Amino acid sequence: MTERRLRLRLAYDGTDFVGWQMQSNGRTVQEELEKALETLHGHPVRSYVAGRTDSGVHARGQVVHFDSDATVPVDRFPMALNSKLPRDVRVAACGEAARDFDARRSAARREYQYYIEPAEFSDPFSRRWALTLKSCPPITTMNACASRIIGSHDFTTFSAIGDQSESKIRHVYSAGFNIEGRLITFRIAANAFLWKMVRSIVGTILQSCAQKDPPEAMSAVLGARSRKAVGATVPAKGLFLNRVIYDF
Amino acid sequence: MTERRLRLRLAYDGTDFVGWQMQSNGRTVQEELEKALETLHGHPVRSYVAGRTDSGVHARGQVVHFDSDATVPVDRFPMALNSKLPRDVRVAACGEAARDFDARRSAARREYQYYIEPAEFSDPFSRRWALTLKSCPPITTMNACASRIIGSHDFTTFSAIGDQSESKIRHVYSAGFNIEGRLITFRIAANAFLWKMVRSIVGTILQSCAQKDPPEAMSAVLGARSRKAVGATVPAKGLFLNRVIYDF
Repeated sequence: MTERRLRLRLAYDGTDFVGWQMQSNGRTVQEELEKALETLHGHPVRSYVAGRTDSGVHARGQVVHFDSDATVPVDRFPMALNSKLPRDVRVAACGEAARDFDARRSAARREYQYYIEPAEFSDPFSRRWALTLKSCPPITTMNACASRIIGSHDFTTFSAIGDQSESKIRHVYSAGFNIEGRLITFRIAANAFLWKMVRSIVGTILQSCAQKDPPEAMSAVLGARSRKAVGATVPAKGLFLNRVIYDF
Repeated sequence: MTERRLRLRLAYDGTDFVGWQMQSNGRTVQEELEKALETLHGHPVRSYVAGRTDSGVHARGQVVHFDSDATVPVDRFPMALNSKLPRDVRVAACGEAARDFDARRSAARREYQYYIEPAEFSDPFSRRWALTLKSCPPITTMNACASRIIGSHDFTTFSAIGDQSESKIRHVYSAGFNIEGRLITFRIAANAFLWKMVRSIVGTILQSCAQKDPPEAMSAVLGARSRKAVGATVPAKGLFLNRVIYDF
Protein backbone atom coordinates (compact mmCIF):
# COMPACT_ATOMS: atom_id res chain seq x y z
CA MET A 1 0.00 0.00 0.00
CA THR A 2 1.21 3.49 -0.74
CA GLU A 3 1.93 5.73 2.17
CA ARG A 4 -0.60 8.22 3.45
CA ARG A 5 -0.21 10.93 6.06
CA LEU A 6 -2.37 10.43 9.15
CA ARG A 7 -3.15 12.67 12.10
CA LEU A 8 -4.05 11.55 15.60
CA ARG A 9 -5.68 13.34 18.49
CA LEU A 10 -4.25 12.13 21.79
CA ALA A 11 -5.02 12.51 25.47
CA TYR A 12 -2.52 11.62 28.17
CA ASP A 13 -2.04 11.86 31.90
CA GLY A 14 1.38 13.48 32.15
CA THR A 15 1.96 12.45 35.79
CA ASP A 16 4.19 9.48 35.04
CA PHE A 17 5.96 10.90 31.98
CA VAL A 18 9.08 13.04 31.71
CA GLY A 19 7.29 14.85 28.88
CA TRP A 20 6.58 14.28 25.21
CA GLN A 21 9.98 14.05 23.66
CA MET A 22 12.23 10.98 23.64
CA GLN A 23 15.11 11.32 26.03
CA SER A 24 17.29 9.00 28.00
CA ASN A 25 16.18 9.83 31.53
CA GLY A 26 12.63 8.52 31.69
CA ARG A 27 9.39 7.41 30.15
CA THR A 28 8.04 9.65 27.37
CA VAL A 29 4.72 9.81 25.51
CA GLN A 30 6.50 9.82 22.14
CA GLU A 31 8.30 6.59 23.02
CA GLU A 32 5.05 4.86 24.04
CA LEU A 33 3.26 6.05 20.90
CA GLU A 34 6.10 5.05 18.58
CA LYS A 35 6.28 1.60 20.22
CA ALA A 36 2.56 1.11 19.49
CA LEU A 37 2.97 2.45 15.93
CA GLU A 38 5.89 0.07 15.34
CA THR A 39 3.87 -2.93 16.57
CA LEU A 40 1.00 -1.97 14.29
CA HIS A 41 3.17 -1.33 11.21
CA GLY A 42 5.86 -3.97 11.66
CA HIS A 43 8.58 -1.34 11.26
CA PRO A 44 9.61 1.89 13.03
CA VAL A 45 7.34 4.89 12.38
CA ARG A 46 8.42 8.41 13.27
CA SER A 47 5.78 10.72 14.83
CA TYR A 48 5.68 14.53 14.75
CA VAL A 49 3.87 16.44 17.47
CA ALA A 50 2.06 19.78 17.56
CA GLY A 51 3.37 20.85 20.96
CA ARG A 52 6.12 19.17 22.97
CA THR A 53 4.69 19.12 26.48
CA ASP A 54 7.02 19.23 29.50
CA SER A 55 7.43 16.67 32.22
CA GLY A 56 4.17 16.30 34.15
CA VAL A 57 2.04 18.34 31.71
CA HIS A 58 -1.18 16.64 30.54
CA ALA A 59 -2.99 16.70 27.21
CA ARG A 60 -6.61 16.34 26.22
CA GLY A 61 -6.15 17.24 22.56
CA GLN A 62 -2.54 16.81 21.50
CA VAL A 63 -2.08 16.34 17.73
CA VAL A 64 0.50 14.14 16.01
CA HIS A 65 1.16 13.27 12.37
CA PHE A 66 2.99 10.33 10.82
CA ASP A 67 3.21 8.55 7.48
CA SER A 68 1.62 5.14 7.36
CA ASP A 69 1.65 2.21 4.94
CA ALA A 70 -0.73 0.21 7.16
CA THR A 71 -3.91 -1.10 5.54
CA VAL A 72 -5.94 -0.49 8.73
CA PRO A 73 -8.90 1.85 7.98
CA VAL A 74 -8.45 5.25 9.68
CA ASP A 75 -11.50 4.80 11.90
CA ARG A 76 -9.97 1.59 13.31
CA PHE A 77 -6.67 3.24 14.24
CA PRO A 78 -7.82 4.55 17.67
CA MET A 79 -8.89 1.10 18.88
CA ALA A 80 -5.89 -0.64 17.29
CA LEU A 81 -3.41 1.76 18.92
CA ASN A 82 -5.25 1.92 22.26
CA SER A 83 -5.00 -1.85 22.62
CA LYS A 84 -1.21 -1.48 22.45
CA LEU A 85 -0.77 1.76 24.40
CA PRO A 86 -0.44 1.99 28.19
CA ARG A 87 -3.59 3.17 29.97
CA ASP A 88 -2.28 6.70 30.58
CA VAL A 89 -2.17 7.50 26.83
CA ARG A 90 -5.32 7.27 24.69
CA VAL A 91 -5.90 7.95 21.01
CA ALA A 92 -9.21 9.81 20.73
CA ALA A 93 -9.38 10.16 16.94
CA CYS A 94 -7.51 9.47 13.71
CA GLY A 95 -7.95 10.99 10.27
CA GLU A 96 -6.19 11.20 6.94
CA ALA A 97 -4.30 14.46 6.39
CA ALA A 98 -2.96 16.29 3.36
CA ARG A 99 0.52 15.18 2.27
CA ASP A 100 1.94 18.52 3.42
CA PHE A 101 0.13 18.58 6.77
CA ASP A 102 2.51 19.16 9.65
CA ALA A 103 1.13 18.82 13.19
CA ARG A 104 3.35 21.64 14.47
CA ARG A 105 3.84 23.99 11.51
CA SER A 106 0.25 23.78 10.21
CA ALA A 107 -1.24 24.60 13.63
CA ALA A 108 -2.98 27.99 13.70
CA ARG A 109 -3.72 28.12 17.39
CA ARG A 110 -3.14 26.26 20.67
CA GLU A 111 -5.34 26.26 23.75
CA TYR A 112 -4.02 25.49 27.21
CA GLN A 113 -5.89 25.22 30.50
CA TYR A 114 -4.56 25.45 34.06
CA TYR A 115 -6.50 24.11 37.06
CA ILE A 116 -6.38 25.72 40.50
CA GLU A 117 -8.10 24.17 43.50
CA PRO A 118 -8.75 26.44 46.50
CA ALA A 119 -7.63 24.47 49.60
CA GLU A 120 -11.01 24.92 51.27
CA PHE A 121 -12.58 22.88 48.46
CA SER A 122 -9.72 20.43 48.04
CA ASP A 123 -10.63 16.92 47.08
CA PRO A 124 -8.62 13.69 46.92
CA PHE A 125 -9.38 13.11 43.23
CA SER A 126 -7.95 16.26 41.67
CA ARG A 127 -4.57 16.24 43.40
CA ARG A 128 -2.79 14.89 40.31
CA TRP A 129 -3.99 17.62 37.96
CA ALA A 130 -4.71 20.79 39.93
CA LEU A 131 -2.59 23.18 41.94
CA THR A 132 -3.96 23.54 45.48
CA LEU A 133 -3.79 27.12 46.76
CA LYS A 134 -4.39 28.13 50.39
CA SER A 135 -5.92 31.38 49.27
CA CYS A 136 -6.81 32.35 45.75
CA PRO A 137 -7.15 35.99 44.62
CA PRO A 138 -10.60 37.15 43.42
CA ILE A 139 -11.43 36.16 39.82
CA THR A 140 -12.04 39.78 38.78
CA THR A 141 -8.59 40.83 40.01
CA MET A 142 -6.87 37.96 38.23
CA ASN A 143 -8.80 38.69 35.04
CA ALA A 144 -7.78 42.35 35.13
CA CYS A 145 -4.17 41.10 35.00
CA ALA A 146 -4.88 38.41 32.39
CA SER A 147 -6.48 40.88 30.00
CA ARG A 148 -3.16 42.80 29.90
CA ILE A 149 -1.46 40.03 27.96
CA ILE A 150 -4.11 39.65 25.24
CA GLY A 151 -2.85 40.68 21.81
CA SER A 152 0.53 40.60 20.06
CA HIS A 153 3.40 41.08 22.46
CA ASP A 154 7.04 40.20 22.94
CA PHE A 155 6.73 37.53 25.64
CA THR A 156 10.46 37.37 26.54
CA THR A 157 9.44 38.01 30.18
CA PHE A 158 7.50 34.76 30.23
CA SER A 159 10.01 32.56 28.42
CA ALA A 160 12.38 30.06 30.00
CA ILE A 161 16.20 30.09 29.78
CA GLY A 162 16.31 27.22 27.30
CA ASP A 163 13.74 28.65 24.88
CA GLN A 164 15.18 28.51 21.37
CA SER A 165 12.54 30.52 19.48
CA GLU A 166 14.01 33.16 17.17
CA SER A 167 11.19 35.59 17.80
CA LYS A 168 9.56 35.94 21.21
CA ILE A 169 6.49 37.66 19.74
CA ARG A 170 3.28 35.69 20.14
CA HIS A 171 -0.36 36.56 19.60
CA VAL A 172 -2.62 35.76 22.56
CA TYR A 173 -6.27 35.53 21.40
CA SER A 174 -7.84 35.06 24.80
CA ALA A 175 -6.75 34.62 28.40
CA GLY A 176 -8.97 34.45 31.45
CA PHE A 177 -9.91 32.80 34.71
CA ASN A 178 -13.25 31.11 35.35
CA ILE A 179 -14.98 29.40 38.24
CA GLU A 180 -15.91 25.83 37.34
CA GLY A 181 -17.62 24.15 40.27
CA ARG A 182 -15.11 24.09 43.11
CA LEU A 183 -12.16 24.72 40.76
CA ILE A 184 -10.71 27.82 39.17
CA THR A 185 -9.48 27.42 35.61
CA PHE A 186 -7.24 29.61 33.52
CA ARG A 187 -7.70 29.26 29.75
CA ILE A 188 -5.38 30.77 27.22
CA ALA A 189 -5.33 30.57 23.43
CA ALA A 190 -2.46 31.82 21.26
CA ASN A 191 -0.97 31.21 17.84
CA ALA A 192 1.94 29.54 19.64
CA PHE A 193 3.59 29.54 23.06
CA LEU A 194 7.13 29.96 24.31
CA TRP A 195 8.62 27.32 26.58
CA LYS A 196 6.95 27.46 30.04
CA MET A 197 5.00 30.57 28.99
CA VAL A 198 1.62 29.49 30.41
CA ARG A 199 3.01 28.38 33.78
CA SER A 200 5.04 31.58 34.01
CA ILE A 201 2.01 33.77 33.22
CA VAL A 202 -0.18 32.01 35.82
CA GLY A 203 2.57 32.23 38.45
CA THR A 204 3.11 35.93 37.76
CA ILE A 205 -0.61 36.77 37.93
CA LEU A 206 -1.01 34.89 41.22
CA GLN A 207 2.02 36.64 42.70
CA SER A 208 1.01 40.06 41.42
CA CYS A 209 -2.50 39.69 42.88
CA ALA A 210 -1.13 38.37 46.20
CA GLN A 211 1.08 41.47 46.42
CA LYS A 212 -1.96 43.61 45.61
CA ASP A 213 -0.18 45.18 42.64
CA PRO A 214 -2.49 47.19 40.35
CA PRO A 215 -3.33 45.43 37.03
CA GLU A 216 -1.05 47.91 35.21
CA ALA A 217 1.87 46.18 36.90
CA MET A 218 1.23 43.23 34.60
CA SER A 219 1.81 45.46 31.55
CA ALA A 220 5.04 46.69 33.11
CA VAL A 221 6.21 43.11 33.71
CA LEU A 222 5.40 42.22 30.09
CA GLY A 223 7.04 45.41 28.81
CA ALA A 224 10.23 44.71 30.79
CA ARG A 225 11.04 41.88 28.33
CA SER A 226 13.16 40.34 31.01
CA ARG A 227 12.83 37.05 32.81
CA LYS A 228 13.90 38.86 35.98
CA ALA A 229 10.53 40.64 36.08
CA VAL A 230 8.62 37.40 36.29
CA GLY A 231 6.96 35.65 39.26
CA ALA A 232 7.27 31.99 40.18
CA THR A 233 6.38 29.35 37.60
CA VAL A 234 3.43 27.22 38.74
CA PRO A 235 3.85 23.40 38.81
CA ALA A 236 3.34 21.32 35.66
CA LYS A 237 0.62 19.10 37.13
CA GLY A 238 -2.16 21.72 36.71
CA LEU A 239 -1.46 22.27 33.00
CA PHE A 240 -3.37 20.69 30.09
CA LEU A 241 -2.86 21.14 26.36
CA ASN A 242 -6.59 21.28 25.57
CA ARG A 243 -6.51 21.49 21.81
CA VAL A 244 -4.64 22.43 18.70
CA ILE A 245 -6.60 24.20 16.00
CA TYR A 246 -5.93 24.04 12.25
CA ASP A 247 -7.38 26.43 9.73
CA PHE A 248 -8.64 23.81 7.29
CA MET B 1 -12.82 21.16 78.09
CA THR B 2 -15.55 18.60 78.35
CA GLU B 3 -15.84 16.09 75.59
CA ARG B 4 -18.23 16.55 72.71
CA ARG B 5 -19.16 14.15 69.94
CA LEU B 6 -18.15 15.34 66.46
CA ARG B 7 -18.96 14.06 63.00
CA LEU B 8 -16.81 14.41 59.91
CA ARG B 9 -17.59 14.06 56.23
CA LEU B 10 -14.63 12.59 54.39
CA ALA B 11 -13.58 12.04 50.79
CA TYR B 12 -10.76 9.71 49.82
CA ASP B 13 -9.13 8.18 46.79
CA GLY B 14 -9.13 4.49 47.67
CA THR B 15 -6.46 3.55 45.10
CA ASP B 16 -3.55 3.43 47.51
CA PHE B 17 -5.45 2.08 50.55
CA VAL B 18 -6.22 -1.49 51.60
CA GLY B 19 -9.59 -0.16 52.74
CA TRP B 20 -11.00 1.70 55.71
CA GLN B 21 -10.28 -0.54 58.62
CA MET B 22 -6.96 -0.84 60.46
CA GLN B 23 -5.16 -4.02 59.60
CA SER B 24 -1.59 -5.18 59.51
CA ASN B 25 -1.14 -5.64 55.76
CA GLY B 26 -1.25 -2.12 54.40
CA ARG B 27 -2.16 1.52 54.57
CA THR B 28 -5.73 2.26 55.75
CA VAL B 29 -7.87 5.40 55.82
CA GLN B 30 -8.73 4.85 59.49
CA GLU B 31 -5.05 4.76 60.40
CA GLU B 32 -4.34 8.01 58.54
CA LEU B 33 -7.35 9.72 60.10
CA GLU B 34 -6.53 8.55 63.63
CA LYS B 35 -2.90 9.68 63.22
CA ALA B 36 -4.15 13.17 62.30
CA LEU B 37 -6.68 13.12 65.18
CA GLU B 38 -3.95 12.10 67.63
CA THR B 39 -1.65 14.92 66.48
CA LEU B 40 -4.48 17.42 66.88
CA HIS B 41 -5.58 16.15 70.32
CA GLY B 42 -2.26 15.15 71.84
CA HIS B 43 -3.63 11.70 72.69
CA PRO B 44 -5.12 8.76 70.78
CA VAL B 45 -8.70 9.28 69.52
CA ARG B 46 -10.80 6.37 68.28
CA SER B 47 -12.94 6.96 65.18
CA TYR B 48 -16.17 5.16 64.18
CA VAL B 49 -17.16 4.95 60.54
CA ALA B 50 -20.54 4.73 58.76
CA GLY B 51 -19.42 2.20 56.16
CA ARG B 52 -16.17 0.23 56.10
CA THR B 53 -15.09 0.49 52.48
CA ASP B 54 -13.02 -2.29 50.91
CA SER B 55 -9.56 -2.08 49.44
CA GLY B 56 -9.57 0.25 46.44
CA VAL B 57 -13.09 1.64 47.05
CA HIS B 58 -13.37 5.43 47.06
CA ALA B 59 -15.53 7.80 49.09
CA ARG B 60 -16.97 11.21 48.40
CA GLY B 61 -19.16 11.39 51.50
CA GLN B 62 -17.99 8.92 54.14
CA VAL B 63 -19.10 9.82 57.69
CA VAL B 64 -17.14 9.27 60.89
CA HIS B 65 -17.80 10.15 64.53
CA PHE B 66 -15.42 10.55 67.45
CA ASP B 67 -15.36 12.17 70.88
CA SER B 68 -13.17 15.22 71.18
CA ASP B 69 -11.83 17.33 74.05
CA ALA B 70 -10.04 19.68 71.61
CA THR B 71 -10.82 23.41 71.92
CA VAL B 72 -10.62 23.89 68.13
CA PRO B 73 -13.95 25.35 66.83
CA VAL B 74 -15.82 22.80 64.67
CA ASP B 75 -15.56 24.91 61.52
CA ARG B 76 -11.76 24.91 61.86
CA PHE B 77 -11.51 21.12 62.11
CA PRO B 78 -11.48 20.46 58.34
CA MET B 79 -8.50 22.72 57.74
CA ALA B 80 -6.69 21.58 60.90
CA LEU B 81 -7.07 17.90 59.96
CA ASN B 82 -6.38 18.42 56.26
CA SER B 83 -3.03 20.02 57.06
CA LYS B 84 -2.06 16.76 58.80
CA LEU B 85 -3.70 14.24 56.45
CA PRO B 86 -2.09 12.84 53.30
CA ARG B 87 -3.40 14.34 50.08
CA ASP B 88 -5.58 11.33 49.20
CA VAL B 89 -7.85 11.86 52.24
CA ARG B 90 -9.73 15.13 52.74
CA VAL B 91 -12.12 16.27 55.43
CA ALA B 92 -14.97 18.12 53.69
CA ALA B 93 -16.98 19.12 56.76
CA CYS B 94 -17.18 18.81 60.54
CA GLY B 95 -20.11 19.35 62.87
CA GLU B 96 -21.13 18.71 66.44
CA ALA B 97 -23.38 15.66 66.88
CA ALA B 98 -25.74 14.46 69.59
CA ARG B 99 -24.05 12.46 72.38
CA ASP B 100 -25.80 9.31 71.14
CA PHE B 101 -25.02 9.85 67.44
CA ASP B 102 -23.37 6.82 65.88
CA ALA B 103 -22.00 7.16 62.33
CA ARG B 104 -22.98 3.58 61.48
CA ARG B 105 -26.04 2.80 63.61
CA SER B 106 -27.72 6.20 63.18
CA ALA B 107 -27.42 6.08 59.37
CA ALA B 108 -30.79 5.78 57.62
CA ARG B 109 -29.51 5.34 54.11
CA ARG B 110 -26.35 4.91 52.06
CA GLU B 111 -25.76 5.87 48.45
CA TYR B 112 -23.12 4.23 46.28
CA GLN B 113 -22.11 5.01 42.72
CA TYR B 114 -20.26 2.86 40.20
CA TYR B 115 -18.52 4.29 37.12
CA ILE B 116 -18.26 2.46 33.81
CA GLU B 117 -16.27 3.83 30.91
CA PRO B 118 -17.05 2.41 27.44
CA ALA B 119 -13.66 1.65 25.82
CA GLU B 120 -14.48 3.74 22.75
CA PHE B 121 -14.62 6.83 24.99
CA SER B 122 -11.76 5.81 27.28
CA ASP B 123 -9.63 8.60 28.62
CA PRO B 124 -6.32 8.62 30.52
CA PHE B 125 -7.76 10.54 33.49
CA SER B 126 -10.53 8.20 34.62
CA ARG B 127 -8.54 4.96 34.65
CA ARG B 128 -8.16 5.02 38.43
CA TRP B 129 -11.87 5.26 39.19
CA ALA B 130 -13.87 3.73 36.35
CA LEU B 131 -14.19 0.24 34.94
CA THR B 132 -13.41 0.22 31.22
CA LEU B 133 -15.72 -2.07 29.23
CA LYS B 134 -15.15 -3.05 25.60
CA SER B 135 -18.87 -3.13 25.02
CA CYS B 136 -21.56 -1.95 27.37
CA PRO B 137 -25.17 -3.20 27.21
CA PRO B 138 -27.90 -0.61 26.39
CA ILE B 139 -28.97 1.54 29.36
CA THR B 140 -32.61 0.49 29.04
CA THR B 141 -31.71 -3.21 29.22
CA MET B 142 -29.53 -2.69 32.29
CA ASN B 143 -32.23 -0.60 33.95
CA ALA B 144 -34.84 -3.32 33.35
CA CYS B 145 -32.57 -5.60 35.43
CA ALA B 146 -31.77 -2.97 38.04
CA SER B 147 -35.44 -2.25 38.72
CA ARG B 148 -35.87 -5.91 39.77
CA ILE B 149 -33.84 -5.38 42.93
CA ILE B 150 -35.67 -2.28 44.16
CA GLY B 151 -37.60 -2.89 47.39
CA SER B 152 -37.08 -5.15 50.41
CA HIS B 153 -35.39 -8.41 49.51
CA ASP B 154 -33.16 -11.08 50.95
CA PHE B 155 -29.87 -10.22 49.23
CA THR B 156 -28.01 -13.44 50.16
CA THR B 157 -27.29 -13.93 46.43
CA PHE B 158 -25.30 -10.70 46.39
CA SER B 159 -23.39 -11.16 49.63
CA ALA B 160 -19.78 -12.28 50.00
CA ILE B 161 -18.53 -15.36 51.89
CA GLY B 162 -17.23 -13.33 54.82
CA ASP B 163 -20.41 -11.29 55.37
CA GLN B 164 -21.33 -11.44 59.05
CA SER B 165 -24.77 -9.79 58.95
CA GLU B 166 -27.44 -11.69 60.88
CA SER B 167 -30.17 -10.76 58.43
CA LYS B 168 -29.52 -10.53 54.69
CA ILE B 169 -32.69 -8.48 54.13
CA ARG B 170 -32.04 -4.98 52.88
CA HIS B 171 -34.29 -2.28 51.48
CA VAL B 172 -33.14 -0.81 48.16
CA TYR B 173 -34.76 2.60 47.60
CA SER B 174 -33.43 3.21 44.10
CA ALA B 175 -31.08 1.56 41.62
CA GLY B 176 -30.39 2.65 38.08
CA PHE B 177 -27.91 3.37 35.31
CA ASN B 178 -27.44 6.79 33.72
CA ILE B 179 -25.36 8.28 30.94
CA GLU B 180 -23.16 11.09 32.24
CA GLY B 181 -21.11 12.52 29.41
CA ARG B 182 -18.89 9.73 28.13
CA LEU B 183 -19.40 7.65 31.28
CA ILE B 184 -22.14 5.34 32.46
CA THR B 185 -22.94 5.47 36.15
CA PHE B 186 -24.89 3.09 38.34
CA ARG B 187 -26.42 4.67 41.47
CA ILE B 188 -27.95 2.70 44.26
CA ALA B 189 -29.45 3.79 47.60
CA ALA B 190 -30.42 1.38 50.38
CA ASN B 191 -30.89 1.40 54.13
CA ALA B 192 -27.67 -0.64 54.33
CA PHE B 193 -25.56 -2.93 52.15
CA LEU B 194 -24.10 -6.38 52.54
CA TRP B 195 -20.40 -6.91 51.98
CA LYS B 196 -19.58 -6.53 48.24
CA MET B 197 -23.29 -6.21 47.45
CA VAL B 198 -22.98 -3.28 45.01
CA ARG B 199 -20.09 -4.78 43.05
CA SER B 200 -21.89 -8.09 42.90
CA ILE B 201 -25.13 -6.50 41.63
CA VAL B 202 -23.31 -4.53 38.91
CA GLY B 203 -21.35 -7.62 37.83
CA THR B 204 -24.50 -9.72 37.67
CA ILE B 205 -26.44 -7.14 35.64
CA LEU B 206 -23.56 -6.76 33.16
CA GLN B 207 -23.27 -10.52 32.77
CA SER B 208 -27.01 -11.07 32.51
CA CYS B 209 -27.32 -8.39 29.79
CA ALA B 210 -24.27 -9.75 27.92
CA GLN B 211 -25.94 -13.19 27.89
CA LYS B 212 -29.14 -11.55 26.64
CA ASP B 213 -31.11 -13.00 29.56
CA PRO B 214 -34.60 -11.51 29.96
CA PRO B 215 -34.94 -9.03 32.90
CA GLU B 216 -36.97 -11.66 34.81
CA ALA B 217 -33.75 -13.65 35.13
CA MET B 218 -32.57 -11.00 37.59
CA SER B 219 -35.55 -11.77 39.87
CA ALA B 220 -34.71 -15.47 39.64
CA VAL B 221 -31.07 -14.78 40.61
CA LEU B 222 -32.23 -12.69 43.58
CA GLY B 223 -34.83 -15.31 44.56
CA ALA B 224 -32.24 -18.10 44.48
CA ARG B 225 -30.71 -16.66 47.70
CA SER B 226 -27.50 -18.37 46.76
CA ARG B 227 -24.12 -16.92 45.95
CA LYS B 228 -23.81 -19.56 43.24
CA ALA B 229 -26.44 -17.72 41.17
CA VAL B 230 -24.36 -14.57 41.01
CA GLY B 231 -22.21 -13.15 38.18
CA ALA B 232 -18.69 -11.81 38.50
CA THR B 233 -17.98 -9.05 41.02
CA VAL B 234 -16.78 -5.87 39.29
CA PRO B 235 -13.45 -4.30 40.41
CA ALA B 236 -13.32 -1.98 43.44
CA LYS B 237 -11.81 0.95 41.56
CA GLY B 238 -15.14 2.04 40.00
CA LEU B 239 -17.01 2.19 43.33
CA PHE B 240 -17.68 5.32 45.40
CA LEU B 241 -19.53 5.71 48.69
CA ASN B 242 -21.30 8.89 47.65
CA ARG B 243 -23.11 9.76 50.84
CA VAL B 244 -24.59 8.59 54.09
CA ILE B 245 -27.95 10.05 55.05
CA TYR B 246 -29.22 10.60 58.60
CA ASP B 247 -32.84 11.29 59.47
CA PHE B 248 -32.21 14.26 61.70
